[in-house]
Amino acid sequence: MKRINLGLIGWGTIGVGVTKVLEQTSTSLAERLGAELYIKRIADLDITTPRDVSIPKDRLTQNAEDILSDPEIQIVIELIGGIEPARQFILDAIGAGKQVVTANKALLAEHGFEIFESARVKKVDVGFEASVGGGIPIIRAITEGLVSNRIKSIYGIINGTANYILTRMYEEKKDFEEVLAEAQKLGYAEADPSYDIRGIDTAHKLAILSTLAFGTGVRSDQIYTEGIERISLLDLSFAAELGYKIKLLALAKNDQDGLEVRVHPTMIPQDNMLASVDGVYNAIYIIGGFTGPTMFYGQGAGQLPTASAVMSNIVEIARNVLHSSTGMITPVVHKALESNDKPIKDIRRIRSDYYLRFSAMDRPGVLSAISGILGKHNISISSVIQKGRGEKGGVPIIMMTHEAQESDLQSALSEIDCMPMVLDKTLCIRIENLPS
Amino acid sequence: MKRINLGLIGWGTIGVGVTKVLEQTSTSLAERLGAELYIKRIADLDITTPRDVSIPKDRLTQNAEDILSDPEIQIVIELIGGIEPARQFILDAIGAGKQVVTANKALLAEHGFEIFESARVKKVDVGFEASVGGGIPIIRAITEGLVSNRIKSIYGIINGTANYILTRMYEEKKDFEEVLAEAQKLGYAEADPSYDIRGIDTAHKLAILSTLAFGTGVRSDQIYTEGIERISLLDLSFAAELGYKIKLLALAKNDQDGLEVRVHPTMIPQDNMLASVDGVYNAIYIIGGFTGPTMFYGQGAGQLPTASAVMSNIVEIARNVLHSSTGMITPVVHKALESNDKPIKDIRRIRSDYYLRFSAMDRPGVLSAISGILGKHNISISSVIQKGRGEKGGVPIIMMTHEAQESDLQSALSEIDCMPMVLDKTLCIRIENLPS
Repeated sequence: MKRINLGLIGWGTIGVGVTKVLEQTSTSLAERLGAELYIKRIADLDITTPRDVSIPKDRLTQNAEDILSDPEIQIVIELIGGIEPARQFILDAIGAGKQVVTANKALLAEHGFEIFESARVKKVDVGFEASVGGGIPIIRAITEGLVSNRIKSIYGIINGTANYILTRMYEEKKDFEEVLAEAQKLGYAEADPSYDIRGIDTAHKLAILSTLAFGTGVRSDQIYTEGIERISLLDLSFAAELGYKIKLLALAKNDQDGLEVRVHPTMIPQDNMLASVDGVYNAIYIIGGFTGPTMFYGQGAGQLPTASAVMSNIVEIARNVLHSSTGMITPVVHKALESNDKPIKDIRRIRSDYYLRFSAMDRPGVLSAISGILGKHNISISSVIQKGRGEKGGVPIIMMTHEAQESDLQSALSEIDCMPMVLDKTLCIRIENLPS
Repeated sequence: MKRINLGLIGWGTIGVGVTKVLEQTSTSLAERLGAELYIKRIADLDITTPRDVSIPKDRLTQNAEDILSDPEIQIVIELIGGIEPARQFILDAIGAGKQVVTANKALLAEHGFEIFESARVKKVDVGFEASVGGGIPIIRAITEGLVSNRIKSIYGIINGTANYILTRMYEEKKDFEEVLAEAQKLGYAEADPSYDIRGIDTAHKLAILSTLAFGTGVRSDQIYTEGIERISLLDLSFAAELGYKIKLLALAKNDQDGLEVRVHPTMIPQDNMLASVDGVYNAIYIIGGFTGPTMFYGQGAGQLPTASAVMSNIVEIARNVLHSSTGMITPVVHKALESNDKPIKDIRRIRSDYYLRFSAMDRPGVLSAISGILGKHNISISSVIQKGRGEKGGVPIIMMTHEAQESDLQSALSEIDCMPMVLDKTLCIRIENLPS
């Protein structure tokens, strides 16, 4: 039987997952493929810590070069993450005519063009199913399943840590800090959780999704990004009372006058499917021109779900290697990255309904002063809730607005936040009235 | 620019959809593919009824042979449905070395092996994404996205008509017959709705899904199938009271001792994602060995969603034609159809919790007689509801059982249904306690 030689760079959680999955499935996959998938070499700085998988020691190396310069290795799997040296390893692999599989969303979001350009020139495949949505096969859904659709919009819950925290806060009636500490203890949040909580990881993934969906290069630094660190239990409860859930949402809309790409806490109606996506689960809700609404749901992280996505690329690319037909898909991505014809809207130009939580002194005239400033800036209020006491002797005032322009809202809020009666920066959550 | 010539057989709703989608997207798809997708010929018995799409008359023919014998046509799209002559057209196209795209679930469920065997011999592609789940790219999710997973189970809402009827009955508190009549008026149900309502269409689709997922040939006549025609508004209300929804579910489980494949009305917990899939929407919930639970959601029928799925196959196969790499995927399906190593469990061997609605005379001793018979057959009751009056002077008695063996339950029910106090055949709904 033929053999496809794999070289794995990075033997951490996901890397070990890939070796585990291969150990369990190599026989059945070989039957399907007509060739054996063989891990010829694994490179990691740490090759001594025991992993729960049987790989002979002589296949381990601390030097990625042993993989990159091995002419027998046909597919390189990069799972070290981060920008360097991952970027250089991938470029070297492509330069040597090897196929590449990676889960590295940060790298693709920032250096995608360089990577896909060199892949196009060398006619090799670059698989990155695992970069977004863990075990959910969302990349091929967009690039292949929905290929004929003009995609209108994407709404994604694509960071399990942030979703876990928001879910637990609401379900257990606990504060952000308390749940974050628990999540860190359980391994659902990193020691430094800022990538997940501040929306950066979500923006990396959205850059990849929107580039593919809209066929135009979107970099993560072009995406307006807010995290969940200011969301309080109070907001989650008010949202529920109003028929909403708060999710850290990745949004992308393909409007006549440009693309909207943004990541921020968002209120969505409780009866939309996305609102049921709780805990570490991810989902991507896509409205296609022909398909209408679709949704793809599953575990967005974790060793085995992510390894499953990596494996799906390995199998696909191995098949292409066997049939000498690599380099067929990559140009699609490349073409998207090459074109920059669609302008990206500044956040100040978007229109939205808003949820506003003001922290004001409990004094006569506060409500009238706040609503006066909103009115002056063309912001019309649809409802007001005021009850109970907030922290620091202040009182939370909740307002829901009708659709308004973000620039108007920001002007109003900077004015309001300068009022002496206002004790803390006003919290603002955008609302998306998704269909049920 | 290169051109890929398409021949379309069957210019009904979906066929017109495909021509519409191509009309709107041919430029952008040509850019992606590096080749033009050109509909060279359309065959339909009716070529006079105007369709809302501009196709020159000289490309229309009433004779499919004009497509099958045209050496320039590379991809044949079969959208006439039914067994014959669709089967012969497809076999002839494959015989002539043409690639095939079809949405014909009935044909694949009954004659899949013959079709994929000839495709394997001729090394051509057969695309059938549109055969299950309309616009949801579920076929490639199973065959490619989840390729390394041992799939444990599939739970599908894959018939829009049946789901629409159950949803409307519950939401509008109307009877089955009334909603069915409305659905027929609105075009959501056929004049002869039996395929949809009796579960036959669902069984066809489940045959395809389980063949792909479990890698073993499953024919629709091996699938235990019950329809929704006996579900009453009463059952939907009792289910809600008990925390459940009733859906016409396609179930497939890969157990140690064989496959379970069945289609029947099923009670699922309200807080499982599938329970939120209402109206004409479809969803397929798959538990993969590595991914855990995943779900794929969207419009399961309709002109444009289905055309979108057909187009995804056309693009994929056109790319393979351009790179001379057809025949890569087909063997996977073929291998599955060829093997029949996994026995399919008889319905009498399954175990389940059950919802039972007895229609009994309102007389003393009825409850005791029924529960006595159940006990004798090892069926243990978890709860009982009895209230109000039923039809014909009878009273509905609702019982929920603990897990029991189907053969025991059927024996008990045949005994109970023979009791003179029992006025109508007992309604039995299987319960699946899916995770939230």
